[in-house]
Amino acid sequence: MSTITAAVAGASGYVGGEVLRTLLAHPEVTIGAVTASSNAGARLGELQPHLLPLADRVLDPTDAEHLAGHDVVFLGLPHGASAEVAATLGDDVLVIDCGADFRLDSSDDWAEFYGGDGAHDWAGTWPYGLPELPGQREALAGAKRVAVPGCFPTISTLTAMPAVLADLVHPDLTIVAPTGTSGAGKKLAPGFLASEVMGQASAYGVGGVHRHTPEIEQNLRKAGAADPVVSFTPILAPMARGILATVSAPLKDGVTADDVRAAYEKAYADEPFVHVLPDGTWPQTKSVLGANLALVQATVDPRANKLVAIGAMDNLAKGTAGGAVQSMNLALGLPETTGLSTVGTAP
Amino acid sequence: MSTITAAVAGASGYVGGEVLRTLLAHPEVTIGAVTASSNAGARLGELQPHLLPLADRVLDPTDAEHLAGHDVVFLGLPHGASAEVAATLGDDVLVIDCGADFRLDSSDDWAEFYGGDGAHDWAGTWPYGLPELPGQREALAGAKRVAVPGCFPTISTLTAMPAVLADLVHPDLTIVAPTGTSGAGKKLAPGFLASEVMGQASAYGVGGVHRHTPEIEQNLRKAGAADPVVSFTPILAPMARGILATVSAPLKDGVTADDVRAAYEKAYADEPFVHVLPDGTWPQTKSVLGANLALVQATVDPRANKLVAIGAMDNLAKGTAGGAVQSMNLALGLPETTGLSTVGTAP
Amino acid sequence: MSTITAAVAGASGYVGGEVLRTLLAHPEVTIGAVTASSNAGARLGELQPHLLPLADRVLDPTDAEHLAGHDVVFLGLPHGASAEVAATLGDDVLVIDCGADFRLDSSDDWAEFYGGDGAHDWAGTWPYGLPELPGQREALAGAKRVAVPGCFPTISTLTAMPAVLADLVHPDLTIVAPTGTSGAGKKLAPGFLASEVMGQASAYGVGGVHRHTPEIEQNLRKAGAADPVVSFTPILAPMARGILATVSAPLKDGVTADDVRAAYEKAYADEPFVHVLPDGTWPQTKSVLGANLALVQATVDPRANKLVAIGAMDNLAKGTAGGAVQSMNLALGLPETTGLSTVGTAP
Amino acid sequence: MSTITAAVAGASGYVGGEVLRTLLAHPEVTIGAVTASSNAGARLGELQPHLLPLADRVLDPTDAEHLAGHDVVFLGLPHGASAEVAATLGDDVLVIDCGADFRLDSSDDWAEFYGGDGAHDWAGTWPYGLPELPGQREALAGAKRVAVPGCFPTISTLTAMPAVLADLVHPDLTIVAPTGTSGAGKKLAPGFLASEVMGQASAYGVGGVHRHTPEIEQNLRKAGAADPVVSFTPILAPMARGILATVSAPLKDGVTADDVRAAYEKAYADEPFVHVLPDGTWPQTKSVLGANLALVQATVDPRANKLVAIGAMDNLAKGTAGGAVQSMNLALGLPETTGLSTVGTAP
Repeated sequence: MSTITAAVAGASGYVGGEVLRTLLAHPEVTIGAVTASSNAGARLGELQPHLLPLADRVLDPTDAEHLAGHDVVFLGLPHGASAEVAATLGDDVLVIDCGADFRLDSSDDWAEFYGGDGAHDWAGTWPYGLPELPGQREALAGAKRVAVPGCFPTISTLTAMPAVLADLVHPDLTIVAPTGTSGAGKKLAPGFLASEVMGQASAYGVGGVHRHTPEIEQNLRKAGAADPVVSFTPILAPMARGILATVSAPLKDGVTADDVRAAYEKAYADEPFVHVLPDGTWPQTKSVLGANLALVQATVDPRANKLVAIGAMDNLAKGTAGGAVQSMNLALGLPETTGLSTVGTAP
Repeated sequence: MSTITAAVAGASGYVGGEVLRTLLAHPEVTIGAVTASSNAGARLGELQPHLLPLADRVLDPTDAEHLAGHDVVFLGLPHGASAEVAATLGDDVLVIDCGADFRLDSSDDWAEFYGGDGAHDWAGTWPYGLPELPGQREALAGAKRVAVPGCFPTISTLTAMPAVLADLVHPDLTIVAPTGTSGAGKKLAPGFLASEVMGQASAYGVGGVHRHTPEIEQNLRKAGAADPVVSFTPILAPMARGILATVSAPLKDGVTADDVRAAYEKAYADEPFVHVLPDGTWPQTKSVLGANLALVQATVDPRANKLVAIGAMDNLAKGTAGGAVQSMNLALGLPETTGLSTVGTAP
Repeated sequence: MSTITAAVAGASGYVGGEVLRTLLAHPEVTIGAVTASSNAGARLGELQPHLLPLADRVLDPTDAEHLAGHDVVFLGLPHGASAEVAATLGDDVLVIDCGADFRLDSSDDWAEFYGGDGAHDWAGTWPYGLPELPGQREALAGAKRVAVPGCFPTISTLTAMPAVLADLVHPDLTIVAPTGTSGAGKKLAPGFLASEVMGQASAYGVGGVHRHTPEIEQNLRKAGAADPVVSFTPILAPMARGILATVSAPLKDGVTADDVRAAYEKAYADEPFVHVLPDGTWPQTKSVLGANLALVQATVDPRANKLVAIGAMDNLAKGTAGGAVQSMNLALGLPETTGLSTVGTAP
Repeated sequence: MSTITAAVAGASGYVGGEVLRTLLAHPEVTIGAVTASSNAGARLGELQPHLLPLADRVLDPTDAEHLAGHDVVFLGLPHGASAEVAATLGDDVLVIDCGADFRLDSSDDWAEFYGGDGAHDWAGTWPYGLPELPGQREALAGAKRVAVPGCFPTISTLTAMPAVLADLVHPDLTIVAPTGTSGAGKKLAPGFLASEVMGQASAYGVGGVHRHTPEIEQNLRKAGAADPVVSFTPILAPMARGILATVSAPLKDGVTADDVRAAYEKAYADEPFVHVLPDGTWPQTKSVLGANLALVQATVDPRANKLVAIGAMDNLAKGTAGGAVQSMNLALGLPETTGLSTVGTAP
């Protein structure tokens, strides 16, 4: 029986669409208002034709009036817009922000990487919607505000974390991560045109300037790394969904492949949404397409004395909307796995 | 006027096809025998329908009889097969091997990474067909045997080399390189089916076991690195052609972005087939699709104190057949750029 | 509560994998044996890594012993193999054949298009698993044998049928249908390699020789066409899933766009898994990716006096496994929509 | 020796880029001005990074001043803009318009399909740049104005024409043609985003409304069809380049497959840029990627008594820029094949 009502702001974008797709499969949720800014007034069927059960819904404007009266409000808004909208919603409403505004603990990091846009009271940073990170599951229980992690931080953290927790590596990580294009949303820029992307790989945000860099470091600190350093390079790959994170780090003395395997298996033994693959099997992004699941594998490169760990995830699913609903479940006291699937759509 | 006759062994595969495509544009070459093993007897038009001018050629068997009588013989054969074929060709014939058999200087590396298949007299290692590497242009001049580099070593070396030559980094490199599927040839394995590859990124050969690892290290030694260490992770991306090499390495003390830029511009100032992009512009693989060209760019990641350099190349073109013809030009005393294009086919 | 046990034969292929993916979401089904031929003995996780909940299942051989004792057995076998396997299963077991053996009513058609392989007693043709076709829903109720339609016949029939039912066209249809590669299964042939398929469109089975041609005509006869003629051309497109059927037919005198619209809306007004899009909106294959849904739209081309109708479907979902489970529901007396989703995974 | 100077207006778009790519391989042409409108002032390397030899060129504004003084001016402009620009160029300058403004003979067709935009003196319709069409080679010889055909009309005409010329079919054609996205140029619309296009097929311009319909009919009339009727449906396919035209038409009485084969072979026996494949082999778009070549094949569908003919072409190459340069060669009295390649870039 559906007893929870949820509104989705930004329902015309990819994030909003995936939140709706995920909620449609959730047995406890009734979808209420769907809102947008420039697309307000349009039928959802025009903009999200894959959501047939909601095709005749009309997009309302994203404002306090239309978002009021729900148990949960998901925000899929541009950077800097979430604080204002959240302020109009009562403290008794669960607000789950899929944007960046409340992810960083450090106002300095915010100023450096986001240029200060969307500044807010940093004392009020929201619980971080990555339940697998130490302490977060507790922070999310009963929370009324949730900051959903960035997609790269989610998979980078999950891929690196067991080695950090077990103190197997020096926390000097090199992360290279091909990603699908949906991470850029429906942004109309030449570089995201199909003619440009198909058949092509290209790097962007090179040299430590990608906004997800400080968020990954922040997570590694929460996992116990003293002074983590991350060199992160995202790569745009010709696929709509999926991230493959490749994490390298110098091994501490004497660490063996068995140590690595044991650390990974231990870290995720009880996690429903992170799976360590059998030895010798490497993650593939289509295995998790549409699923709330991260697949990870790790080994040592003995020639280079490095850890090499690989993680695969759907940036929109576990990377955004699935993780958001997982956090919602925790915040509302539902079983964490309610309504979430670990089955990918392949081939 | 075409005065050089060239035979291509392995003409039914992707490497052989690209050698033929390249030679068709070469003003000094007449294409002689085209040979294959299991496909002998077939019309080339059936197997390489994009090579219309050669469509009615019939594939001969790959044997001494059919390869005899040419000025140049290109070999696109499975590992271990080249030595025997080369032995049947006279010392006056230029033999250009696109396979791995004669790439490594170290028989130990060969034994470790190739399992000893195709062992040969290591004293007789062939000149290495990467003219941009110090000393190779001289070694290739007048040569009668050429070992064409692996595609990953070519772009990894070209991307890292200026920093090594200028002593800007500790030679402890992490290389992650998405590649198109044509690098695997026409191998019929489930993992290369279109249904599996499209929409997916996946890593393979993880943990330092890829055969191109020792070849990259060998090249870096030739570029002056004392004890280079490479941790190399290839990623299969959903595109037919192209490699994007991402190279990270710890910077030596005090090295700045300007130092890096100067080193890259200096290294390739006179190279016709390697281009350093303007500051802030990053390489894209389609820019070099079908072209004998590598695009590189580099910067520093100040947060992590690392060099990050990116290189883009077509694995079949500059990565194999284009590089092979460039080496042929040098070996035969032709202008190095004869018949080779730096124009990519995009979008 | 799951009370129905289901076995899947051919569980290592794409059809078997999609049946399993669909059944995992079905609230009344418990998955029993998963079987294969050459892959027997393997972990399912190796071959279908997207089905995490079944990863540790081991594939049994496809034989009577392992398929016995289930309420339902799904067959995803090569042509000609189903009759023998079905014969070993009791008459009280529901057998759902995703192959071609029991689709055609005419042994002559079978002989002409399938070469007579897998001949069987044609008097025993099985109920046809396309519930939307007149008479089939009744035939499927309580059935113990079901022949799942081919994917092209399903979408071609659904796209053309309303015009035929309403007698709007001369039944002389031209159907051109781009399809994804998964329709070919995991067949290891050069033409299905990613390097060949990506970036390319190509036609095959041209000239009325594709095996699905007589099946489409058979369906149109069941929809009331006296002597339907179909000229069918499939096109291999660079995508893993999806069919877009383009159906053209000469309009009968005086038929208007409004007549067409009315006929389509009427035909599918009560169908849960076929949706007529709003006027002016055309179907897209990703809208139905992974969903048990066909999207259709039709109009007239006044210049040519033709109907043009377009249908989009996922060949593995509504085109095979979804349709199979829909038929299972009907055969077992469950609500037809049980466990089936109309939500696609996009973008 | 390069003696012809050519300017390219609209050099920042896909059409302009492909004209430049083609001209770079032309031995008689020197590239002069490259112009753009909103991109004027930019380095060409930023916008067309695949054209390395021109990377440092700066885009001039598209105006009379900058286009003056060349032997040839190629126009890659929006609809309706060509007439005005051409008027500023002298009658002694060869102007080759890659846009639609001068393609149609009928002002009524123009008004119906283009809404009257860009109206001009219809008595002055330009020679049509499809040399393979009867009479056009003669019309192009010495011409000073050329209207380059649309890409769909080029391949549709070439695919259907032999059957029309030989009077084998009733000229009631159904044409369905998957196309790559580059035909849409760099238009920033959500439907052309990579996230939308990849993995998807979709139809557009359904119901006889596509602007290329009257142009195809016009061509068929020039090939001898009395009252040709075309029902044309384009399909957007997930590839950057290529069109696969599928042409169906009712056969006249008694026409056999041999008649069809003979007609196609005869029609193109002497054409350098149209190739009829051997019997049983069907065209693939990657075979002609980047090449000035159309591949065609035809057969009969005896069940439906229809011709089915398939043609493959690169929309930007033979479909636009290659055809434009082929026409330039004819207009200037150069050998028609000068500087044009029939070799595709595959895989």
